[in-house]
Amino acid sequence: MEYYSRQINQLIDEFSALPGIGSKTAQRLAFYILGQPKEKALALADAIKEAREHVRYCKTCFALTDAEQCPICASSERDHSTIMVVENTRDMAAYEKTGRYNGVYHVLHGAISPMLGIGPADIKLKELIKRLEGDVHEVIISTNASLEGETTAMYISKLIKPAGIRVTRIASGVPVGGDLEYIDEVTLLRALEGRVEL
Amino acid sequence: MEYYSRQINQLIDEFSALPGIGSKTAQRLAFYILGQPKEKALALADAIKEAREHVRYCKTCFALTDAEQCPICASSERDHSTIMVVENTRDMAAYEKTGRYNGVYHVLHGAISPMLGIGPADIKLKELIKRLEGDVHEVIISTNASLEGETTAMYISKLIKPAGIRVTRIASGVPVGGDLEYIDEVTLLRALEGRVEL
Repeated sequence: MEYYSRQINQLIDEFSALPGIGSKTAQRLAFYILGQPKEKALALADAIKEAREHVRYCKTCFALTDAEQCPICASSERDHSTIMVVENTRDMAAYEKTGRYNGVYHVLHGAISPMLGIGPADIKLKELIKRLEGDVHEVIISTNASLEGETTAMYISKLIKPAGIRVTRIASGVPVGGDLEYIDEVTLLRALEGRVEL
Repeated sequence: MEYYSRQINQLIDEFSALPGIGSKTAQRLAFYILGQPKEKALALADAIKEAREHVRYCKTCFALTDAEQCPICASSERDHSTIMVVENTRDMAAYEKTGRYNGVYHVLHGAISPMLGIGPADIKLKELIKRLEGDVHEVIISTNASLEGETTAMYISKLIKPAGIRVTRIASGVPVGGDLEYIDEVTLLRALEGRVEL
């Protein structure tokens, strides 16, 4: 694309490098930014700088936050003896949105994936084990229902169970509102296995 | 979304403000940026700053460029007596990619749209008329085949034709490789009207 000036090409390239942004979308975004009033265009640049410079891991649960400890870990109203293990900060936010979970979290920042060469040492697992030295009654494993998430869940459960701590896994099955017809067989079998008494 | 720190929310908000980026995608992009090495994350911020600060309109054709005049207007190898009128810089780049057009361009930066309250004075039309004082043989109107693009084409043609300059409009019809079955009726009728002798 030598049709644009160097700076425009640079901006298009940077947008293209983002996940899920193809070259057409990158062009659209670049020209949108160029068409914005200066302070609006620079607001995105500043937000990136600001976030990348100030956001860090919570020292306890490793969620992305702006203080030494995240608001959840710092709260005295949460049940610190129940730890929900999630793959990333977004999954934590998803549970927070339900407004019904009162325990704390532990963010692994990934999942074990032999295929991608991600082992137990590459995620925040050691840090989870260290937290279990405190007063912990239950570890709820909320990794994804993917191959990697399941592998990670099995690994954690084998690691923790001998210590006598209750380890649970969130249920997998048919999503609420889901139409059986469109749900894959693995999920259907999972839903059958996990059936509950009415 | 009070589940994230202020800076993360700010970054998500800025991404959400981009066209075609929903809140889920904005979250995904924000966390991708936060997970990148610092210099890679800041590269996008810098590209935005750089582009927004240095890119300006070509003084002749109003394409977005980084010099007083864009490389096309500055080139002595282009035919400066043929002007192709396009709605934006991306449309110009699309024609440049064909590598077969040797004239110059005029970028309107929009199209006349009574519905959106965009009139002839809101696009670079006056500037086009001014260029016609020079040695111009043909004006090729390549605005979009949309209602706004057609309106703009009609308006320009009525304005220019009395001056004795040749005004043409790019053909509309079935796109190459297009399957008739999936093409709308208006396009089919246009293709029929525009049929050529074999």
